[in-house]
Amino acid sequence: MCQLLGMNANTPTDVMFSFTGLATRAEEHKDGFGIAFFEGAGLRLLVDHHSARVSPVAELVKRYPIKSDNVIAHIRKATQGRVALQNTHPFVRELWGRYWVFAHNGDLQGFHPRLHGAFRPVGDTDSEHAFCWLMQELAKAHASVPGVDELSATLRELVPQVARHGNFNLLLSNGEALWAHASTRLHYLVRRHPFGHATLHDEDLTVNFAQQTTPDDRVAVVATEPLTDDEAWTPFAAGELRVFVDGATAG
Amino acid sequence: MCQLLGMNANTPTDVMFSFTGLATRAEEHKDGFGIAFFEGAGLRLLVDHHSARVSPVAELVKRYPIKSDNVIAHIRKATQGRVALQNTHPFVRELWGRYWVFAHNGDLQGFHPRLHGAFRPVGDTDSEHAFCWLMQELAKAHASVPGVDELSATLRELVPQVARHGNFNLLLSNGEALWAHASTRLHYLVRRHPFGHATLHDEDLTVNFAQQTTPDDRVAVVATEPLTDDEAWTPFAAGELRVFVDGATAG
Repeated sequence: MCQLLGMNANTPTDVMFSFTGLATRAEEHKDGFGIAFFEGAGLRLLVDHHSARVSPVAELVKRYPIKSDNVIAHIRKATQGRVALQNTHPFVRELWGRYWVFAHNGDLQGFHPRLHGAFRPVGDTDSEHAFCWLMQELAKAHASVPGVDELSATLRELVPQVARHGNFNLLLSNGEALWAHASTRLHYLVRRHPFGHATLHDEDLTVNFAQQTTPDDRVAVVATEPLTDDEAWTPFAAGELRVFVDGATAG
Repeated sequence: MCQLLGMNANTPTDVMFSFTGLATRAEEHKDGFGIAFFEGAGLRLLVDHHSARVSPVAELVKRYPIKSDNVIAHIRKATQGRVALQNTHPFVRELWGRYWVFAHNGDLQGFHPRLHGAFRPVGDTDSEHAFCWLMQELAKAHASVPGVDELSATLRELVPQVARHGNFNLLLSNGEALWAHASTRLHYLVRRHPFGHATLHDEDLTVNFAQQTTPDDRVAVVATEPLTDDEAWTPFAAGELRVFVDGATAG
């Protein structure tokens, strides 16, 4: 199974610590990785078909403190689709003058809706097909860019139509909010004042967030498996869709 | 003025040498840079709002031999639009299940066509607006993905409609072909067997392409200004649109 990592913060925050934790799990997820950073409306997307353990692009992510308010990362173990750059998550499309970023883990079976809109897959994964369908249906449901609450309501109608075809653990962001849906496995936590220490589960690395933050900072982190040992991660219920805005759960 | 660099090759080729030449010109073009690499249909886009001289992302491009058949790079001196990631070229959209990449130098005045299609700018540059209009008009002109010759014919109709509003030096690629249009300044060359030495104009760096190539390799390079001193660069005529396929001029 692939691994997902999402971050939503009320102040631009780097994800070097969390990504390092994710990348150590890349041994068995050797079929590439990708990470998308929103900086306001702008987007930085780093992808590589090499494992996040050895990729020079991953090395950059671990060392270069890219400050972002919304991040989606994915390390891939190919189930459907060849190992190729066009099959590497996250995927990006533009809708209503905003970038939308999507990453998925899990398998979909028999989900082949007709794509009659402006969104077509470039690669050959079930994931990108599902993303294009979500974008098409969002575009049909709203004439222009709706608020986060309206988007969440539409997604609560759309996502189950995909999820009944298999495992649909997904992260989606437009730079304003982070939506996360779990079919099987997803966990989240919110880091806020008073900040403490956190120790990575897979690597001997501890960070003291109190040294890097102000009392007003708030950061939500979503991951397939808890990344740290000494923080309280909340598992998603099966079929649960959560939306994070300004580092907190909303809606 | 910004600086453009394009590469189209018949075999995946890295652009470390040419990008190094471009990056040395980044002193006065300090408002960010971006580079897009096609690997087949897949795309890798590296952008930074820091100058290509000092950016860790640019450092990666100079050292990590990313092999690509189509590359578009841009270093920016902001004329319209703030210095922000969403205003950093190249821009990317998906059409007909392929990624399209666009970069522009020059200024457009009074070009504000209505965008009624599926392509909207995320940032606030005239360049991204023009790109969205080109994508909209290409989508209207062809029901599904046309061949390179047909695309070139449509672009020869569309591009002058933008170019009459100012300077429209542009590079456009869908991973299959590289289109280049010059209003004022653009040069190109084709490197082919027998390969020789090339010395960067702006930096004390010489490469012997004969050591890195096979006799069948062919690479077209397009740049605002000639990047090397000892090769024969051909200037574009004003208003000239050229298309490069498999490392050679076509159409």
